[in-house]
Amino acid sequence: MTEITYPLILINFKSYTQSSGRRAVELAKTAERVWKETGVTIAVAPQLTDLGVVAQSVEIPVFSQHVDNVLPGAHTGHVTLEAVKDAGAIGTMLNHSEKRLRLDVIDDIVKRAKELKLKTVVCANTAEVSAAVAALGPDMVAIEPPELIGTGIPVSRAKPEIVTNTLKLVKRVNPKIRVLCGAGISSGEDVAAAIRLGTVGVLVASAIVKAKDWYTAILDMAKPLMK
Amino acid sequence: MTEITYPLILINFKSYTQSSGRRAVELAKTAERVWKETGVTIAVAPQLTDLGVVAQSVEIPVFSQHVDNVLPGAHTGHVTLEAVKDAGAIGTMLNHSEKRLRLDVIDDIVKRAKELKLKTVVCANTAEVSAAVAALGPDMVAIEPPELIGTGIPVSRAKPEIVTNTLKLVKRVNPKIRVLCGAGISSGEDVAAAIRLGTVGVLVASAIVKAKDWYTAILDMAKPLMK
Amino acid sequence: MTEITYPLILINFKSYTQSSGRRAVELAKTAERVWKETGVTIAVAPQLTDLGVVAQSVEIPVFSQHVDNVLPGAHTGHVTLEAVKDAGAIGTMLNHSEKRLRLDVIDDIVKRAKELKLKTVVCANTAEVSAAVAALGPDMVAIEPPELIGTGIPVSRAKPEIVTNTLKLVKRVNPKIRVLCGAGISSGEDVAAAIRLGTVGVLVASAIVKAKDWYTAILDMAKPLMK
Amino acid sequence: MTEITYPLILINFKSYTQSSGRRAVELAKTAERVWKETGVTIAVAPQLTDLGVVAQSVEIPVFSQHVDNVLPGAHTGHVTLEAVKDAGAIGTMLNHSEKRLRLDVIDDIVKRAKELKLKTVVCANTAEVSAAVAALGPDMVAIEPPELIGTGIPVSRAKPEIVTNTLKLVKRVNPKIRVLCGAGISSGEDVAAAIRLGTVGVLVASAIVKAKDWYTAILDMAKPLMK
Repeated sequence: MTEITYPLILINFKSYTQSSGRRAVELAKTAERVWKETGVTIAVAPQLTDLGVVAQSVEIPVFSQHVDNVLPGAHTGHVTLEAVKDAGAIGTMLNHSEKRLRLDVIDDIVKRAKELKLKTVVCANTAEVSAAVAALGPDMVAIEPPELIGTGIPVSRAKPEIVTNTLKLVKRVNPKIRVLCGAGISSGEDVAAAIRLGTVGVLVASAIVKAKDWYTAILDMAKPLMK
Repeated sequence: MTEITYPLILINFKSYTQSSGRRAVELAKTAERVWKETGVTIAVAPQLTDLGVVAQSVEIPVFSQHVDNVLPGAHTGHVTLEAVKDAGAIGTMLNHSEKRLRLDVIDDIVKRAKELKLKTVVCANTAEVSAAVAALGPDMVAIEPPELIGTGIPVSRAKPEIVTNTLKLVKRVNPKIRVLCGAGISSGEDVAAAIRLGTVGVLVASAIVKAKDWYTAILDMAKPLMK
Repeated sequence: MTEITYPLILINFKSYTQSSGRRAVELAKTAERVWKETGVTIAVAPQLTDLGVVAQSVEIPVFSQHVDNVLPGAHTGHVTLEAVKDAGAIGTMLNHSEKRLRLDVIDDIVKRAKELKLKTVVCANTAEVSAAVAALGPDMVAIEPPELIGTGIPVSRAKPEIVTNTLKLVKRVNPKIRVLCGAGISSGEDVAAAIRLGTVGVLVASAIVKAKDWYTAILDMAKPLMK
Repeated sequence: MTEITYPLILINFKSYTQSSGRRAVELAKTAERVWKETGVTIAVAPQLTDLGVVAQSVEIPVFSQHVDNVLPGAHTGHVTLEAVKDAGAIGTMLNHSEKRLRLDVIDDIVKRAKELKLKTVVCANTAEVSAAVAALGPDMVAIEPPELIGTGIPVSRAKPEIVTNTLKLVKRVNPKIRVLCGAGISSGEDVAAAIRLGTVGVLVASAIVKAKDWYTAILDMAKPLMK
């Protein structure tokens, strides 16, 4: 699968113990089950070390959490776009608040990803940074105020003006860029609010990864997106 | 497998196209075949994205090419020791010339790896750096003069005094630390020379990964180590 | 002096031997002399270690070559905006191709610099990156294709479309942002060409720093800008 | 001045507001006054931007807080050993906990500093890292447990075994390496304790920089070192 249907829920596994190794496959399969039952696009971004295993185990879209800005070759310990593609992923997240990148590196990776037909989801912490990212032409910008990440307080409730301001600035720079809403998303209600503000979906992590019941947690978020 | 028998050939897949994705598994299986036929320990260090897949496919020791210095948790895009272990690897390379690390980070990872019973192979570019690494207590130091990497000119021939000087300084700091010899290793003869100088094996990459016939290339290097 | 009159020649001393220590002051005084004789704004960006000395020695605008993204405090070895101001500079260059920065860091420094009334000149390697920078609202964007830096082949001649495309994209994002032209500028003719393309001046380094006669070299570049 | 007499008090100005710009010169002159009155060596490490100004203002030894691993040339925003020397400093601190460096970079800078006859003070956070640094042959190792920096609780009191263990491991690797004691030093008593443990002096920052009366604070620390 290389095309994505929107709206979208993208689950970032981060480097949580709960979503590592064998559990990464289980979580991805649970996401796949919800997709099959609801028709809502659910994508997963497992840890780098689990990328190949997860991509071989499920039919839903798999993203890398990060790539480095090097070509295939003598680059020990680096993650190339080509390796991500060979592993079976359809794209990559970039510039997450926990793994920020240089501006020129984002530009370069976004351009190379297009050549390789890989999707890019570039994270941003402010409306201005979101607009800057939009000028580089990625598939999606994910606005995530770092102070809300992991809090359970959704940006759509705490600071809806950040989302609306981001949408305004991004669309002015490039109306084709889609915006995801992240940070603090923890319920179906938060997902619905994000969509109402004008985004095409959510980027979510701890609320699902740390949930006692993955299936229920994902289903709750998917329901507001069912057609 | 968490214990290693020496001598050792460690194959670094780097981020070469030839050893990516499906081909990573094939190369690892070829290494496994040579181990079964010769009894010589052959370990592999695939790309991060292939780590889980490769570790699930073979019985030989699998190493990560790199880990980051973070604990499991909210660390998008980072590679933890725990993830490396969950993926099925028995240890990790560190501080390769293509992915150098901060001194305090090497210290920290080496200590944490011991707690997790993971092996560490720390690369070094000079005899002095090798001695510094030895003071941190890893399982192995791999001396690799960067100017020889990928040249096909083995350090054991071009600069044997670097290897002997490394061994002298390392053993003075900590006699228990094993030394691997890397950079330019391209034949069984080079492997034999490395052993004669006093190392416990070799770290090799392009000479195997880019070989037309992986089996022949690995077998040639393993032969001098057969008992 | 905290205000700048355009057009502008900004001389980057880099870390050249020719513009280090005592020679930094001499070069800055030569630039000051040309300003006094021609009325053309000439600014200098000495090495960090010379910043205070140079700023105390001349009346022309002095810029830092770089700042780090930390507040004053316990940050050994870092350069704060406040230190740059205390040293007597009126602003700072950022994101030079030899010292690239993270996107979020540029955003943060540009915002803080405004609060401190310090000018920002943010370098960019492509038209897209220039537009991204413009979204962050610095005083100036300096477009410098890295492959031309230090070549003596001016971007205005080798790739004028990069400059015109940069101007088009930057002005679309924010018409207030001024554009400087860098890389390969080595004569008054190159300066004139840069102005004709629509920039407000040039960023120049080796062509002046390494000139046998600083005065003649600077005067040659200033002449086309005299009113 | 390129030679240092031990024992030594090295005052790190960090990037504190209290020791920035004009105040950097005042603080350095106060340190110089105490040196003149007591004969005790007092060295200062001002912010990078103040390095030249301070070095021109005092006769006591001046250190840089940090240098980058590049040769003079096209390296915008970097600090070279040569620039530090041209600015009038006699050496540099390296690898402070607020500016950690790669192992190979420390090795390279220490070797180049020797060629340039510049002193190196390399900071370390653990006894093992101190021993590793000693293997690289700097002039001094400064042991500073990061958790005590800025606390006012001296390592000599909180964790004297870190200092004694550091001395033991460092001397085993290279008996010529001198050890400084840092972190939490805030009185003459702390200085005396550091000397008793076997170090050649102290690395101190906030206790002096933030003191209401610099002269009294420095004098208090110098007294136990008077002959």
